[in-house]
Amino acid sequence: MESTRMSAAAIGQSPYSVVRPCRLHEVPRWDLEADVLVLGFGAAGACAAIEAARAGAGVCLFEATSGSGGTSALSGGEIYFGGNGGTPIQNAAGFTDTTEDLAQYLIMAGGPNVDEARARRYAENSLAHFHWLLEQGVRYKYSFIPERIVEPMTDDCLIWSGSEEAWPFSQQAKPCPRGHTPEFMGMGAGRYLMDVLAERVEQAGVEVHYNTRVIALIADDSNQVHGLVYKHEGRIGYARGRRGVILCAGGFVMNRELLSQNAPQLLRCSQPIGTVDDGSGIQLGQSVGGVAINMAEGFVTVPWYPPETLIKGIFINERGQRFINEDCYHGRVSAHILRQQCDRIFLLLDQASYAEPLFGEHFRIGIGAAGETWTEVEHELELPSGALTATVELYNRHAEAGQDPQFHKAAKWLRPLVDPPFVALDLCVNYAAYTCFTLGGLHTRPSGEVLNAQGLPVSGLYAAGRTACGLPRWGEGYSSGLSLADATYFGREAGRAAAG
Amino acid sequence: MESTRMSAAAIGQSPYSVVRPCRLHEVPRWDLEADVLVLGFGAAGACAAIEAARAGAGVCLFEATSGSGGTSALSGGEIYFGGNGGTPIQNAAGFTDTTEDLAQYLIMAGGPNVDEARARRYAENSLAHFHWLLEQGVRYKYSFIPERIVEPMTDDCLIWSGSEEAWPFSQQAKPCPRGHTPEFMGMGAGRYLMDVLAERVEQAGVEVHYNTRVIALIADDSNQVHGLVYKHEGRIGYARGRRGVILCAGGFVMNRELLSQNAPQLLRCSQPIGTVDDGSGIQLGQSVGGVAINMAEGFVTVPWYPPETLIKGIFINERGQRFINEDCYHGRVSAHILRQQCDRIFLLLDQASYAEPLFGEHFRIGIGAAGETWTEVEHELELPSGALTATVELYNRHAEAGQDPQFHKAAKWLRPLVDPPFVALDLCVNYAAYTCFTLGGLHTRPSGEVLNAQGLPVSGLYAAGRTACGLPRWGEGYSSGLSLADATYFGREAGRAAAG
Repeated sequence: MESTRMSAAAIGQSPYSVVRPCRLHEVPRWDLEADVLVLGFGAAGACAAIEAARAGAGVCLFEATSGSGGTSALSGGEIYFGGNGGTPIQNAAGFTDTTEDLAQYLIMAGGPNVDEARARRYAENSLAHFHWLLEQGVRYKYSFIPERIVEPMTDDCLIWSGSEEAWPFSQQAKPCPRGHTPEFMGMGAGRYLMDVLAERVEQAGVEVHYNTRVIALIADDSNQVHGLVYKHEGRIGYARGRRGVILCAGGFVMNRELLSQNAPQLLRCSQPIGTVDDGSGIQLGQSVGGVAINMAEGFVTVPWYPPETLIKGIFINERGQRFINEDCYHGRVSAHILRQQCDRIFLLLDQASYAEPLFGEHFRIGIGAAGETWTEVEHELELPSGALTATVELYNRHAEAGQDPQFHKAAKWLRPLVDPPFVALDLCVNYAAYTCFTLGGLHTRPSGEVLNAQGLPVSGLYAAGRTACGLPRWGEGYSSGLSLADATYFGREAGRAAAG
Repeated sequence: MESTRMSAAAIGQSPYSVVRPCRLHEVPRWDLEADVLVLGFGAAGACAAIEAARAGAGVCLFEATSGSGGTSALSGGEIYFGGNGGTPIQNAAGFTDTTEDLAQYLIMAGGPNVDEARARRYAENSLAHFHWLLEQGVRYKYSFIPERIVEPMTDDCLIWSGSEEAWPFSQQAKPCPRGHTPEFMGMGAGRYLMDVLAERVEQAGVEVHYNTRVIALIADDSNQVHGLVYKHEGRIGYARGRRGVILCAGGFVMNRELLSQNAPQLLRCSQPIGTVDDGSGIQLGQSVGGVAINMAEGFVTVPWYPPETLIKGIFINERGQRFINEDCYHGRVSAHILRQQCDRIFLLLDQASYAEPLFGEHFRIGIGAAGETWTEVEHELELPSGALTATVELYNRHAEAGQDPQFHKAAKWLRPLVDPPFVALDLCVNYAAYTCFTLGGLHTRPSGEVLNAQGLPVSGLYAAGRTACGLPRWGEGYSSGLSLADATYFGREAGRAAAG
């Protein structure tokens, strides 16, 4: 009966691919040899390469595109630092921050599948990691922006970049601003951050191969990883990693099939944030027994503030119901928006609280309705009669008393919405530009060791950044700077572990 | 540097396991040979074995426990049938059912990651499948219970077992009752169904190995599957499957680690429904490149009706807000309960709508509060002042007019809740007995062929039942009888495909 089954070759499968490793005995030659091989030149790959090289390893880095940066370079460059009394910048702004408060915040932010050990490890080492980045040459200005923003438009540093002051986080961890943005004029400091790190990669003697795709891992029959197969200018090469391979190839937000199979709700977001991010890093790990976890989770946001006066408004769904304390981080609000199982979402404001959203045009947030009474707004939005008005009436009654017993918005944002004209901003999911990236990935130890289904390391394999399931693993708990904190810090850990 | 890495053996890993296949060259001998090897003696495995044997294959079935049944035997034995004009039982009860309506319902029920081809395939073959089960000897009575129940306490057959009559399903697919329960007195007809199928398995000449655990697949270097390694009374055996191996080993609801990594919200349910269901079937498939999809989804329920008068009540969360049309299937309501991100959930009833929940004691549904006014109930529940009363007031106002513009509960269930005393049933998630099972699994074609990350079949490998991601893949769309429909029908398809 054997003949009824076609061989892999006969049905057009390559002998190996990102989902099927090249076996050691299939390797015809070694075109390259190094101690440590790193995939991907984003923040995780750069930090892994730097640390591995400084630990004495010879390092080759493979990058699919023609330059450094990866998806990290698309970001605002913010990193979430704190604990240990606080960074010098937090201290200069008058804040102290305990390691326990940072750990507690990270644990809450991790959600139902939190990795507490990883959260504590980062909290303990966050200040030292801040100093490490300073040593690499990343500059931070001693300045603090107290208003709630998304990222500085200036070269300022410290901001409230999460839900620290919002319920329920504020109840269990003393709030402290922890978003640190590099001293770079304007938005998009991720490119600057990556330029600094790329320079250090070069100085550390890392051999970088651009325009080079990794098409398979090389493993023996017990799935111990020995290297990788790459493709450059149409030619296949075999690279040996004597001590290990580190996967830092991003997440899978650009792979619609993987999204539909694992995180279909993210397909509702029209603006995935990614460069390559095709899931191949995760698949390479799976091909040798690595386990992917938490694959349904993603970060999602539509930055509806600043200006912060908008936080005094209330969000409603198409049933006219509130669903979140509006003083949460914009991503947490957006994750709750996606849970509403309807497309129509509005932010209700009165004249006193209204201002034009700073990024309204860019993210396609428009005015859905306006009126002299809330009944008029409700009618114009074609909402169920009496629903919006009942919601506003209840909110106003409690706000008048400085309370929000339903959703616990902090008192400083509570103001009855009584000053006409009234406005409903439209944040319709299928029109506004919701952005997203994935938070599921390879199951790893904090050291970056990739784990198999038995919870044991896949020998010779490491992962960091969004290829791994790291510190940020819950859209509802995300805070700006968490992904870069995870990628840079645990990238470094993976580099040292692989080298050592 | 090789010496710095320990071999798999040195760190205590078996050479192979459910997560690492035994390679063909590692097989010391064949202890058993058959054309088709089936894992698991639940409904999927039984039907796969029957069909493979009838197609002329020699079949061995491996079951970890000492008897037939699997998790299917724990069920009510209901199967979701319809389309093609309707089953004789639907027709006798006065219903006709088109294939298009059934397909449309199944597609809606499949949720954001629906497999439309599979839904259509089942819709087209559902009536023929009903007749096949009759031929196997499963008896169905020509009777219909029009009341909304969970499963018959009698030997009656046809029931409304889903959300067919509820919004939004009723808007896009003509409602028809499709839950068919075997003629078996009392609840728990799953055991009866499995007894009938087990007899057919025996008659078909299938060789059944009880108390036998499958510990690894056997595959060649291109991951073509050739057999499996099993353990019986402490001894390892090697079984060759000349035409294929079919994985029907259930889901992963009994594996808390896999739940926490993939579907952490299911850990909130205190009553997982499973026998083995440790995820090993899925892991075996993954070990040879099979892809697991939709792993975050699960069925969840607390059967809060019958009696159906309870459907006239309204559910609220701890913020005093409604969140669902209460005439949905109990599992859809329960899935929405789990989305509320709070533990406290109440069903509000007045004297006219109240009755004791039939399964209240079993599922720990108690009375949370009672009062002569809704304000009293709100106060006793310590809900935000004015929230419950505003919700009831809005509901009553529209119900009076026979409408539910917020949630679209059908008119027959709408009655203002105005007849004191008023009652709040308590369905607190961390106290009431929420049951669940998983709906993620191996990515397969309708034929049961397990697919790898390239979307190509893993040669020689099939899966059905909850080891596969099948027809039911969305907790919010689940209907009683869908999992058994999927397991029995696609189990048969897998058996034929493997044999043929």
